[in-house]
Amino acid sequence: MSNGLIVSISGPSGVGKGTVIAKLREMLPDCGQSISVTSRAPRGTEQDGVEYYFRTREEFEKLIAEGEIIEYDQYVGNYYGTPLTPLLTMSRGGENVLLDLTVAGSLALKEKFDETVTIFLLPPSMTELQNRLTGRGTEKEDVIEQRMANARGEIESAPKFDYVVTNRTVEQAAEEIAAIMLAESCRYQRRSDAVETLLAK
Amino acid sequence: MSNGLIVSISGPSGVGKGTVIAKLREMLPDCGQSISVTSRAPRGTEQDGVEYYFRTREEFEKLIAEGEIIEYDQYVGNYYGTPLTPLLTMSRGGENVLLDLTVAGSLALKEKFDETVTIFLLPPSMTELQNRLTGRGTEKEDVIEQRMANARGEIESAPKFDYVVTNRTVEQAAEEIAAIMLAESCRYQRRSDAVETLLAK
Repeated sequence: MSNGLIVSISGPSGVGKGTVIAKLREMLPDCGQSISVTSRAPRGTEQDGVEYYFRTREEFEKLIAEGEIIEYDQYVGNYYGTPLTPLLTMSRGGENVLLDLTVAGSLALKEKFDETVTIFLLPPSMTELQNRLTGRGTEKEDVIEQRMANARGEIESAPKFDYVVTNRTVEQAAEEIAAIMLAESCRYQRRSDAVETLLAK
Repeated sequence: MSNGLIVSISGPSGVGKGTVIAKLREMLPDCGQSISVTSRAPRGTEQDGVEYYFRTREEFEKLIAEGEIIEYDQYVGNYYGTPLTPLLTMSRGGENVLLDLTVAGSLALKEKFDETVTIFLLPPSMTELQNRLTGRGTEKEDVIEQRMANARGEIESAPKFDYVVTNRTVEQAAEEIAAIMLAESCRYQRRSDAVETLLAK
């Protein structure tokens, strides 16, 4: 059996990444989802390895030091991060994994694990991106300006990604990403077992 | 505008390449078709550049010598071949081109024009391939055996192709090839203009 794909999707804030990924999960229900690791305590019925992997701050910092955390952030004094090993385990089990990572996270993962398929989600235009950011109505003008500057900076990293998908509509973007996943599973490197089986006799 | 794709499909005799390509042309009616060049004389209302490019034997041999013919064959004393330049012209005009080439032809085209997307069509099994060849009912046993030996030799070249598609059903194979084409059109190299346009202002 060949490995499942590890597909990482990035794009600037406001591009609609969350909606496109939700649509994709609906289209590809068998796709594996990465479980984050956190240093916060479990709440209520939360179980280790279900909602999160729960680790102490010291354990989390050890994971960072070991290069085991693809990307992480701190929120209200707790770490939240994406661990590498569970992805590789799912992939080796033949499961495709879809990841929502920052630009830096996607590039770091590609660097560590060259088979990663990286996709950059673009807005149809900068005006449209600004409209989407403004449309949320929750941010002040200077925050929007800062976000637009960040977006430009991130879009400048698009050439480092394998694929570029423009999010004109959720359906079109999700379909293009699904096509990329199907195509990547047809790459000779991932189908060499089919050829070997045919020639085995 | 970015270049159209040049997609070349190869596979052993009996694998069902013709049927899969016919299905694909139905699904993707905008796809360009390569016009062969021949040294035979035009018949009836046949026009140069429509049914064929008509050239003299001397002109055809000059095209071969110039590396302008990707692959050719002789049939009843006439040359038939696939010319390179019209493909590049269609691609530069933004048109995707779908080609049906021998294994040697696909690899020669990839060598000359690295952007070519090469796809190898596999049978589900060697037994199924033999059934398909026998099912035609037109060939003697030793001819079938020779074809099977040729098929094995060709399948050994599959690792040199970008993608491998198993022809389980015409629909599944055509869909996988259509996904490969959509995915290839999303490669950063082919979408760099979208990124440059966004950052231009």
